[in-house]
Amino acid sequence: MNILYDERVDGALPSVDRAALLHALHQRVPDLPLLHRPEELQPYECDGLSAYRTTPMLVALPERLEQVAALLKLCHEWGVPVVARGAGTGLSGGALPLDKGILLVMARFKQILEIDPAARIARVQPGVRNLAISQAAAPYGLYYAPDPSSQIACSIGGNVAENAGGVHCLKYGLTVHNVLKVDMLTIEGEPMTLGSEALDSPGFDLLALFTGSEGMLGIITEVTVKLLPKPPVAKVLLASFDSVEQAGRAVAEIIAAGIIPGGLEMMDNLAIRAAEDFIHAGYPVHAQAILLCELDGVQADVHDDCQRVHAVLSAAGATEVRLARDEAERMRFWAGRKNAFPAVGRLSPDYYCMDGTIPRRALPGVLKGIQALADAYALRVANVFHAGDGNMHPLILFDANKPGELQRAEALGGKILELCVAMGGSITGEHGVGREKINQMCAQFSHDELTLFHAVKAAFDPKRLLNPGKNIPTLQRCAEFGAMHIHQGQLPFPELERF
Amino acid sequence: MNILYDERVDGALPSVDRAALLHALHQRVPDLPLLHRPEELQPYECDGLSAYRTTPMLVALPERLEQVAALLKLCHEWGVPVVARGAGTGLSGGALPLDKGILLVMARFKQILEIDPAARIARVQPGVRNLAISQAAAPYGLYYAPDPSSQIACSIGGNVAENAGGVHCLKYGLTVHNVLKVDMLTIEGEPMTLGSEALDSPGFDLLALFTGSEGMLGIITEVTVKLLPKPPVAKVLLASFDSVEQAGRAVAEIIAAGIIPGGLEMMDNLAIRAAEDFIHAGYPVHAQAILLCELDGVQADVHDDCQRVHAVLSAAGATEVRLARDEAERMRFWAGRKNAFPAVGRLSPDYYCMDGTIPRRALPGVLKGIQALADAYALRVANVFHAGDGNMHPLILFDANKPGELQRAEALGGKILELCVAMGGSITGEHGVGREKINQMCAQFSHDELTLFHAVKAAFDPKRLLNPGKNIPTLQRCAEFGAMHIHQGQLPFPELERF
Repeated sequence: MNILYDERVDGALPSVDRAALLHALHQRVPDLPLLHRPEELQPYECDGLSAYRTTPMLVALPERLEQVAALLKLCHEWGVPVVARGAGTGLSGGALPLDKGILLVMARFKQILEIDPAARIARVQPGVRNLAISQAAAPYGLYYAPDPSSQIACSIGGNVAENAGGVHCLKYGLTVHNVLKVDMLTIEGEPMTLGSEALDSPGFDLLALFTGSEGMLGIITEVTVKLLPKPPVAKVLLASFDSVEQAGRAVAEIIAAGIIPGGLEMMDNLAIRAAEDFIHAGYPVHAQAILLCELDGVQADVHDDCQRVHAVLSAAGATEVRLARDEAERMRFWAGRKNAFPAVGRLSPDYYCMDGTIPRRALPGVLKGIQALADAYALRVANVFHAGDGNMHPLILFDANKPGELQRAEALGGKILELCVAMGGSITGEHGVGREKINQMCAQFSHDELTLFHAVKAAFDPKRLLNPGKNIPTLQRCAEFGAMHIHQGQLPFPELERF
Repeated sequence: MNILYDERVDGALPSVDRAALLHALHQRVPDLPLLHRPEELQPYECDGLSAYRTTPMLVALPERLEQVAALLKLCHEWGVPVVARGAGTGLSGGALPLDKGILLVMARFKQILEIDPAARIARVQPGVRNLAISQAAAPYGLYYAPDPSSQIACSIGGNVAENAGGVHCLKYGLTVHNVLKVDMLTIEGEPMTLGSEALDSPGFDLLALFTGSEGMLGIITEVTVKLLPKPPVAKVLLASFDSVEQAGRAVAEIIAAGIIPGGLEMMDNLAIRAAEDFIHAGYPVHAQAILLCELDGVQADVHDDCQRVHAVLSAAGATEVRLARDEAERMRFWAGRKNAFPAVGRLSPDYYCMDGTIPRRALPGVLKGIQALADAYALRVANVFHAGDGNMHPLILFDANKPGELQRAEALGGKILELCVAMGGSITGEHGVGREKINQMCAQFSHDELTLFHAVKAAFDPKRLLNPGKNIPTLQRCAEFGAMHIHQGQLPFPELERF
């Protein structure tokens, strides 16, 4: 599937002469590494969401900030769209290139500029890998908390752009809660600093606005993050349930008991069996659902919490609760969860990973609703997700080679997200909107809200050159696609009764 | 001192005929309670920053949201500025009225709409007092964490508008970290919802942008906040030091040791003596500085942390470390701190409370710098502050009846804030910019940054009717006042060497 940028609904992008632009770039930024031959461009035609592919007009691989500033200045003058990309691991097509735009790859900016253990901060370039920050901080007993599954590869710049989460964000927050300062370049190539090392910044909170803005407001050139002390002890409990609804209720009860686990993950039977087959994590393959609950902190605290969680799980109907005996078993339990996506991928030629959030209390109902939708669309869905956050990752299994299955999978995905919105949730938890969920934004937001988003975008980038066609749909797109804003509590499809 | 709205630099506000406006309001919103007689308006001429006073043109005291929407619609049509006000306890003049504007008092919206202990949220109207939320949540063992000193009186709407903090925000965050959703009315009177109960919202993070925007982007009509489980145990350590610099270094070392106290407060000798004299808290009156360090959580954890903090304090040169023996002594220790402002107020006819933040590592140097500045301006300064956050509250003592003292106090305050900016901090921690620190914003932000703020403001309120003249200075104001953007690390006044 090669989905081109849809000009019909997003307004025609300006068409510049590629050769003339290349010439101008060579003149103005002679030392800027550029790719322009088809075989060079091909590896950049998609990000982690490989279903969408577009060949960029040009790929720039700058090594110095002056090159980035000069490139932006020229693009601004010429009216050329710019799509920024870090490691390209994003799952919603946020870094999908445009055939009329430049793909600006920031991956070569990978220096860790400062680790200050006393202030507990790290100052890094945008191309630094998420895990590399924790590795650099480890000698001081510190780490960077947000841990997306791709943390070995994904870059901090991309994490900021997508407001990345991870297994531990229930307790430690999303990227936005762990970033203190972002240095960026505007589309005019002007440097600007958002946030500070201090507690609060006066004026509007542009740092929070910028975090998760998916490359639409500026190009990240430096990130200052908080570092946390590594918890001395971490324990994992594995609980089995006879139904996903029971497991869903247990999640709500753990939180209601006043415990904030480091991680609280759920997998359903399809995911359990796939992961067990792949990783041999020691999961109970006959359970309809399992919960993995990690408790971290100081020894005594973790010990107490383990006992309390154990009691809550048992009371909620768990058929078995197991404490990982040692660090090796704990790591195995997590390996099963962290590899659940590829494991499920082995069950089916293709799979489509969704990312929606719901209020925790809606968990049992939404799980039931997803099953009903899967049945209606005659597709299998595996559920693996950050249960504590209400951040769901239904994996829709399909075979793109069977006529109509891809379309059915896409349609089912859209319905699942609309169900999340109807239950008071949202169409993304941590993967972003990107290109993938641009149409569902029409369901999430009203005309007035989208208008406000566009006005805020225009405050930063009036020519709309930064990552156009992602994240915020045009009003015209919403009108043409016929999607309706879903008012909370109003179910988008009559066939499903309220569960 | 009666400082009128300064049209010279902020652009002339439209002048509407008061009688005609009153007539139109009576016609369009007949049941809207309005105050217009001088004796009725007088109590509203200032907020918690009593040095600035202006009589509003009219005061509206709506009781229903439809009244607010209709009022805004009319103001938008007529071009009448609107200043929102909650309890009026703000300390930076954010709710200071305009003589050409309507003061919109939201205090009558004081219903707690929902406490959901399972989801751990409270949904409340904007006029609900901060402490009332915790009181309503107490039967479920929950509370609302941000605790400004004014929590008995201040309203949640004002807390959101100013992004209020408090003694415990080191561990539990500012208002922005504890708010999930805000319902608001635009200046056109249209309802809009920012954020959701779910983990993350797609699109731009308008909720974070809105929080702390000081009434410039919309009128808050409902707030959904997170509730936290009440920590079962809280202990307070009181440590005495022979110098403020030593106490400052001890703060950095506690944090560097990986401990996050529930509260970490510092008072200098002047503040200690004033508080002791007023409250009889049992403070050591000969100490040059004290630290109050609260540790909260489960029993075992708090016990461990107390021992570790005790060791760090002793190693940092504390001359005495005392653990509050019982709950009564703990409450006394805090009563001294919480009443430090009025206590210092007893030492002098007037005092001026500043609110700046600095990176924690700069604490010893800035304390020394403040003393040097106080000497240079021949005024006494007491320091009482949230040391753990680097959020300083120097209290400048002066006598407004002595010619020139008020001006000297204001000038000294400005210099202290500029020192904070120069050390990498900011001109406000939790009190906001309001009217008070509008000129210092010119020091904090560059021309480009201010331009961006104005563009963001225009996205919400293109006619600039919501709280004009507060928070974000016009470029013209910065030019006329001659204030310069201070680059980090460049000291604003040559007389002070870098300490």
